[in-house]
Amino acid sequence: MTGQRASAPVVGMVGGGQLARMTHQAAASLGVRLRVLAASPGDSAAQVCPDVSVGDHTSLADLRDFAARCDVLTFDHEHVPIEHVAALEQAGVRVRPGAWALHYAQDKLAMRGRLAALGLRCPRYRPVRTLDEVREFAAPGGWPVVLKAARGGYDGKGVWVCHSPGEAGEILAHDIPLIAEEHVQFRRELAAVVACSPHRQGAAFPVVQTVQRDGICHEVLAPAPDLRPGAAARIQELALRVAAELGVTGLLAVELFEITDGLLVNELAMRPHNSGHWTIEGARTSQFEQHVRAVLDLPLGTPRIAAPKVAMANVFGGGCDAVGDVFARYGHVMASDPGAKLHFYGKEPRPGRKIGHVTVLGDAGDDIAVLRQRARRVARYLGSGREDE
Amino acid sequence: MTGQRASAPVVGMVGGGQLARMTHQAAASLGVRLRVLAASPGDSAAQVCPDVSVGDHTSLADLRDFAARCDVLTFDHEHVPIEHVAALEQAGVRVRPGAWALHYAQDKLAMRGRLAALGLRCPRYRPVRTLDEVREFAAPGGWPVVLKAARGGYDGKGVWVCHSPGEAGEILAHDIPLIAEEHVQFRRELAAVVACSPHRQGAAFPVVQTVQRDGICHEVLAPAPDLRPGAAARIQELALRVAAELGVTGLLAVELFEITDGLLVNELAMRPHNSGHWTIEGARTSQFEQHVRAVLDLPLGTPRIAAPKVAMANVFGGGCDAVGDVFARYGHVMASDPGAKLHFYGKEPRPGRKIGHVTVLGDAGDDIAVLRQRARRVARYLGSGREDE
Repeated sequence: MTGQRASAPVVGMVGGGQLARMTHQAAASLGVRLRVLAASPGDSAAQVCPDVSVGDHTSLADLRDFAARCDVLTFDHEHVPIEHVAALEQAGVRVRPGAWALHYAQDKLAMRGRLAALGLRCPRYRPVRTLDEVREFAAPGGWPVVLKAARGGYDGKGVWVCHSPGEAGEILAHDIPLIAEEHVQFRRELAAVVACSPHRQGAAFPVVQTVQRDGICHEVLAPAPDLRPGAAARIQELALRVAAELGVTGLLAVELFEITDGLLVNELAMRPHNSGHWTIEGARTSQFEQHVRAVLDLPLGTPRIAAPKVAMANVFGGGCDAVGDVFARYGHVMASDPGAKLHFYGKEPRPGRKIGHVTVLGDAGDDIAVLRQRARRVARYLGSGREDE
Repeated sequence: MTGQRASAPVVGMVGGGQLARMTHQAAASLGVRLRVLAASPGDSAAQVCPDVSVGDHTSLADLRDFAARCDVLTFDHEHVPIEHVAALEQAGVRVRPGAWALHYAQDKLAMRGRLAALGLRCPRYRPVRTLDEVREFAAPGGWPVVLKAARGGYDGKGVWVCHSPGEAGEILAHDIPLIAEEHVQFRRELAAVVACSPHRQGAAFPVVQTVQRDGICHEVLAPAPDLRPGAAARIQELALRVAAELGVTGLLAVELFEITDGLLVNELAMRPHNSGHWTIEGARTSQFEQHVRAVLDLPLGTPRIAAPKVAMANVFGGGCDAVGDVFARYGHVMASDPGAKLHFYGKEPRPGRKIGHVTVLGDAGDDIAVLRQRARRVARYLGSGREDE
């Protein structure tokens, strides 16, 4: 992004979810135009962004049309067929991240193989097609066993914890490519979000602790409390190394299990990530601004934390509520916690659906458990109208 | 904003400048829809907001049509005829701030009279129609004398520092209603931004120092350095009192002269204000979010500062540059100062036009003069391509 330009650079983002919505907010500060390829005109990002094309992210024709009007193409989700991404690159489109990097985020078997080749510890795994193969895999450690869709898994969907051969058989019956993984007894989960630019500048956000339930992120604590000395730097180095080795441009989120004797790499995502939402207020550069800088090959912003302690909690729809019901709860939560930062994505609050998040910032003397409780309380009330657990 | 709602609340903002643009970014986090009445589809806010009506803010018909599709009406500028604002209120539109408050922001004579009645110190002033009246006014203190358009003054336009009767005569020749004011020898300028909701909740941001040249804000330092003990609280109380006495809903910015023996109130603005742009990153609630909360009668967010020291510098167009030239400078400024927060409003960089701002955040041990220098340097380079003064 050097030399003469007639107008503002245009970043095209495939997918109109909340990640595109928040990317648009960050792009607007920089004067960068975000153009969104949304599945429907009511999508979360389409509600706030004027440059929206409605199209099918699995259609190469739609992707080509969209890319022709953008300076660079990037993604709100992992569901664009990898062969289309490769075809766009072949046609000269600047796609960030590119197909080669992205296939590791889409194909868990390729990802596991590559990480293992790099000498990085992962959960024990193998591809499985039959119940005998799952039984054989389970033998050393016993049940439960985790089955994962080799492709297309996302946010808990496509991951099944099977406690018996019977449960595994049900998943196998769907006849999709699967890998079996050991069910890791972790102490907690951590995540590292880093950015890499085409120039190969890298920047790492502080390492966070994530709290997941049923494979879905519920809370994030930044920085991860009680890390051993040097541990955060080692995890950041690991994530930057993965980004470099896999050729990632833009953001990379590395999800990790902390176990008694070290760390295992769980998942990778190559886009803004739920474990980085806290950076909007909690870091000097948000992950969304960082992604825009990275895909435009601009120098990265400082990833420095902006408050000593930060807690984030996701808001989930809690029943048959309408969008308006969420607003009716604003008075209560804003009055009871004037420091809570509310983010509502404009999505219909269907049960269990992620519709927003809440961030609470604290001082050095604050107890992170108290900040976490504040964020959870506001998030729960916004999503469900209930004060109780 | 209580009870059942079918959908997101809609805030209508008259004016499509950078204040509406930044208000849209803040509204999007809350899931609130900002609808903008812009003068042209290329306006700063119209570039980033999907809900734009193009219309004439001096046409009551256009204002009525626009207001009919909004839950509450507010303003990006002071140029809506006050009789139209009153007519909308009479017709049941929720206008915030309302005509009664707003007329004090539009009519300097009314404002001066009201502040004097409240016992607040202002510069010496009087309405003038003839050169003899100006000469008579000048007599006690001598020249220069400040002449101000009684209505329609904005951002340095409509304010003339006259060093001689000849200069005053030129202004009088335009035959517009004028007031004469003493040319105050101030030590520095300060500003206080406060918010008031229809429920009469109030919240005050930290008091800042502003640095103006030719009546235009160039830099803001937050909090104002070296205030005497208790001075900040007294200034916040003054601003909250003005907001309450004038019935302001939404934001009020009070601009002040610090003189050897106290403070004089200079100007009032009833909208997000340049002296509050630093709050986007520098306060826990930005002035734009606060304005949205206030006009929707939601509880206000905490106005607490988010970094011990903050400096903001405006970016001005420096020549016959195109929008693209500003982007061509991003690489340099982002690489040289990865912590500087860039805001570019997407406006054509005509000479002297305010096209963006830069915010730099510091720690308690940082020298505010150094932070100010960093913000100025980045702003100057973005606007002009020059490193030097």
